[in-house]
Amino acid sequence: MRASQFHISTKKEAPADAEIVSQKLMLRSGMIRKEAAGIYNYMPLAVRTLKKVEKIIREEMDKAGSLEIVMPMVQPAELWMESGRWQKYGDELLRLKDRHGREFALQPTSEEVVTDIARQEINSWKQMPVNFYQIQTKFRDERRPRFGLMRGREFVMKDAYSFDRNEEQAVKSYKLMFDAYCRIFDRLGLVYRPVRADSGAIGGNLSQEFQVIADTGEDVIVYCPESDFAANIELAPALSVIEKRAEPTEEMKMVATPGKEKCETMTEYLGLPLTKSVKAIVLAIDRKDEEGKELPAKVVLLLVRGDHSLNEVKAGKVDILKGGYRFATDDEIMNTFGSKPGYLGPVGLSKDVPVIADLTVANMSDFVVGANKEGYHITGVNWGRDLPEPTQVVDLRNVVEGDMSPDGKGKLTMQRGIEVGHVFYLGDRYSKPLKATFLDENGKPQIIHMGCYGIGVSRLLGAAIEQNHDDKGIIWPKAMAPFEVVICALGYDKSEAVREKADTLYNKLKADGVDVILDDRGLRPGVMFADWELIGVPHRITIGDKGLKDGVVEYTNRRDMNTEKVSYEQVEELLKEKLKY
Amino acid sequence: MRASQFHISTKKEAPADAEIVSQKLMLRSGMIRKEAAGIYNYMPLAVRTLKKVEKIIREEMDKAGSLEIVMPMVQPAELWMESGRWQKYGDELLRLKDRHGREFALQPTSEEVVTDIARQEINSWKQMPVNFYQIQTKFRDERRPRFGLMRGREFVMKDAYSFDRNEEQAVKSYKLMFDAYCRIFDRLGLVYRPVRADSGAIGGNLSQEFQVIADTGEDVIVYCPESDFAANIELAPALSVIEKRAEPTEEMKMVATPGKEKCETMTEYLGLPLTKSVKAIVLAIDRKDEEGKELPAKVVLLLVRGDHSLNEVKAGKVDILKGGYRFATDDEIMNTFGSKPGYLGPVGLSKDVPVIADLTVANMSDFVVGANKEGYHITGVNWGRDLPEPTQVVDLRNVVEGDMSPDGKGKLTMQRGIEVGHVFYLGDRYSKPLKATFLDENGKPQIIHMGCYGIGVSRLLGAAIEQNHDDKGIIWPKAMAPFEVVICALGYDKSEAVREKADTLYNKLKADGVDVILDDRGLRPGVMFADWELIGVPHRITIGDKGLKDGVVEYTNRRDMNTEKVSYEQVEELLKEKLKY
Repeated sequence: MRASQFHISTKKEAPADAEIVSQKLMLRSGMIRKEAAGIYNYMPLAVRTLKKVEKIIREEMDKAGSLEIVMPMVQPAELWMESGRWQKYGDELLRLKDRHGREFALQPTSEEVVTDIARQEINSWKQMPVNFYQIQTKFRDERRPRFGLMRGREFVMKDAYSFDRNEEQAVKSYKLMFDAYCRIFDRLGLVYRPVRADSGAIGGNLSQEFQVIADTGEDVIVYCPESDFAANIELAPALSVIEKRAEPTEEMKMVATPGKEKCETMTEYLGLPLTKSVKAIVLAIDRKDEEGKELPAKVVLLLVRGDHSLNEVKAGKVDILKGGYRFATDDEIMNTFGSKPGYLGPVGLSKDVPVIADLTVANMSDFVVGANKEGYHITGVNWGRDLPEPTQVVDLRNVVEGDMSPDGKGKLTMQRGIEVGHVFYLGDRYSKPLKATFLDENGKPQIIHMGCYGIGVSRLLGAAIEQNHDDKGIIWPKAMAPFEVVICALGYDKSEAVREKADTLYNKLKADGVDVILDDRGLRPGVMFADWELIGVPHRITIGDKGLKDGVVEYTNRRDMNTEKVSYEQVEELLKEKLKY
Repeated sequence: MRASQFHISTKKEAPADAEIVSQKLMLRSGMIRKEAAGIYNYMPLAVRTLKKVEKIIREEMDKAGSLEIVMPMVQPAELWMESGRWQKYGDELLRLKDRHGREFALQPTSEEVVTDIARQEINSWKQMPVNFYQIQTKFRDERRPRFGLMRGREFVMKDAYSFDRNEEQAVKSYKLMFDAYCRIFDRLGLVYRPVRADSGAIGGNLSQEFQVIADTGEDVIVYCPESDFAANIELAPALSVIEKRAEPTEEMKMVATPGKEKCETMTEYLGLPLTKSVKAIVLAIDRKDEEGKELPAKVVLLLVRGDHSLNEVKAGKVDILKGGYRFATDDEIMNTFGSKPGYLGPVGLSKDVPVIADLTVANMSDFVVGANKEGYHITGVNWGRDLPEPTQVVDLRNVVEGDMSPDGKGKLTMQRGIEVGHVFYLGDRYSKPLKATFLDENGKPQIIHMGCYGIGVSRLLGAAIEQNHDDKGIIWPKAMAPFEVVICALGYDKSEAVREKADTLYNKLKADGVDVILDDRGLRPGVMFADWELIGVPHRITIGDKGLKDGVVEYTNRRDMNTEKVSYEQVEELLKEKLKY
């Protein structure tokens, strides 16, 4: 490709509404152009990268035995009603009507359609395992689309679905996909980590996310450097940081703590360590009687240590809260506790209020809690002696740096990540409501076991840039770069020698199968270099009259920006080594 | 690929609602599965063919200098309002609203978005020519979707758009695309014909369709075997079949023709040749006064010879009819002519009614027309003597087999075709309303000249099958076949010898880059052969114990179904020759 025949359209500044670095760099380099909120045009540079990513995904999916299909963007409402998602999905599911008034949805994922395919196509256990994937446009009507390709509304996703005759086989299919995903992200040249993820209502632990590591990531990853434990913080088990509850040593005492509503200010005021305090979180569960009339909400008290934070995903798994919960209103709190928030605690509480304590809280002694009286706390509180044991003791909190890994092999540490893939064992979540059955070896109908496996293809571009950039622009990993090599021909329009040497090298590299672009635009060196540093091509060869006098050209590596002189005759050899082709 | 690991799912019968052969064969072979009216899943076999077609299109588009982009499926209404198509497109444009109530359209094509890109990206004449293409899902909400992929609602289209600084350059871009299209359809191995097509309101003659020749095609193509003239019948010029008007020889005479309302029955009744009769077609143009109040419609009389048929596209280009017309109602006809249809003619007509005569009609003499009196015609009518010369003489009729080619080089003949591509010079149709301008060499703003170029990618699958099939199934051209070669291993599950020879050949062919599938399912020969004949793989190698005893396997060509014995050792050579790899 010659730059003069490629549409290069870089900008000095990103639009004012661009928020994060990948979005800014993609807009500035001309990879994407916004058409509407969360809806982008992929310009030629982006399409080159997209196609390379798609090719690697295809190759690894094919190798793993998955079969490519294409399902429709526009999907009939009836199927979504069968799965229950038409009702439950909320506003992110874009619903529409055709000219005859029939209802459809734009696919955000394709579980319903693929299950419909399976129930029609799969009749016998002999037809499984089978796994279908597609790389296709998806749409999610995000309330607040932002961050460019990271949280767009229209995006490209690879989604795969496995079908098996029992759980054992389904787990095998899951592992095949997990391995394929590792190969895909390895080949893309990204630093990533597969982590355990929440499996929501499905249960089980077969749910893992692939996180591209980046300081700007929205997700928090917890891992143990001494073992292979890694999980999304939503899911990472938090052990008790106190091995065993100590005997009481203090008397319970009410103390005035005027205006000290936070554990931090309260303990500081009392001269106690923060780790002696207990945070009270009041939740409410809405209830109805048998005739559907609203009853007063059930109030529940959750306790975590003062220096810990509540993990809402874990809270949602507590039996009593599984059906859904919300934070209690100030009125509900006042009615139950007799005090406003900031001074709440479990001492003297009505037996009607379940007290759910975090593992650590249950092992605390001589601790401080709110007195259920505005401006007062109680110190020296001990379980059993001063109040009943908690109704339930469970893991309720987010882990913190330095916590022991749940496998006991070391201490936990944290980093931030961007979710780019998710592998998930679905079981019968879709096959049961859609009645996707098969006949087993004994001719008996059985429900198909499913798994689903997604990769955010367009999101990967943003994630790669969040991980790989500097103040000059993007630094593409080789496998994702729109071009592997750029030849910057200085004075291409003026110098016969430059033109001849640049053209010759360009044609040689092309013949070798190198994805090379020749910048023949005749721009000033500074402008030309800035373009390619912004666009992020990994390897640059600069050819100019000055060097050619000595038979020399320059090689610049985009990542470290090191430049070395190399004889024109040896430049092909050098690139061969850098690119390993 | 091994058949046991590929999802092969053929059916003996097509669903009852399948109408045409390509639809039936794609459903029976398991290429597509219907999800809703006009909305299909592309199953693994179809995706293999789709990807091969897309690859050829990409290669040729890239070679022609077009740059691949991806535009959104969901496009903002505002752009479609700017071009006027939001109002004009009709119900085929699927309109929808997002969660915030903003209006969008699902792209049926992408002129608006690409022009929006151009007006933002192109500022200078130096940035052109530039040509962008995408291969992307499209949606048209057809009133009556049918014929499988031939007239679906959701489909895959390659659309390209060229941008140039003047008409001369735009014509060059058009020709580049025309040539690329010829290479694409050549490489796909289809019998096709580029034909002149209607350019609608744009005018000019830079509008050509690529028609895949098939008896079942919906379009009629007119061509001259002695020259390169070829056109859609909508556009093919029809010369006068009478060179010069002869002098009158008969007297005008009213004759009774009771119940003879058709030219055919009337001339038969009168013992005259059909070519002596003139068909009267009455059109109406709706009119309003300056205040927008409806006026009585303007009635217009069109005349074509009795054996000819009206071409409505040509009629729409007559000046007076350009603004739109309809067929007149019986009341309007009665009010104007004083007779019911079947007995209408130009003799004695009010001067207020324009008479538009076809070229042939204007050269007729001693002809027969309706008498404007029920049950009567007039014979021996002659222009000038019996009635004024026609108000306008133009080409109004469809050509018929045997007409002279407009280039005078031979007689016209006809065949049927399926439109799979269209190249079109747009001029300023979109760039003007969307204000897509650039600065010319003199720094003066000018409107960009555009062209658009479409290929119905998914439709091509249907068209190829309409052209290439027999009673056993599909006969894929090599370039489009989901697999090039199938190895049918008879008794793969039982015979060690068959297994060893089949596996060896399979691995060799794969290593040679042949797209081969090994049928290792252990099915009975009849069932296995029927599957592959239905699916349409061009080359079949059959390996069985019986032949192997003599070191022989069978080669079968799908197109002619000829089978030849070949020694196992030579089969690779044979395939090399057949496939030319």
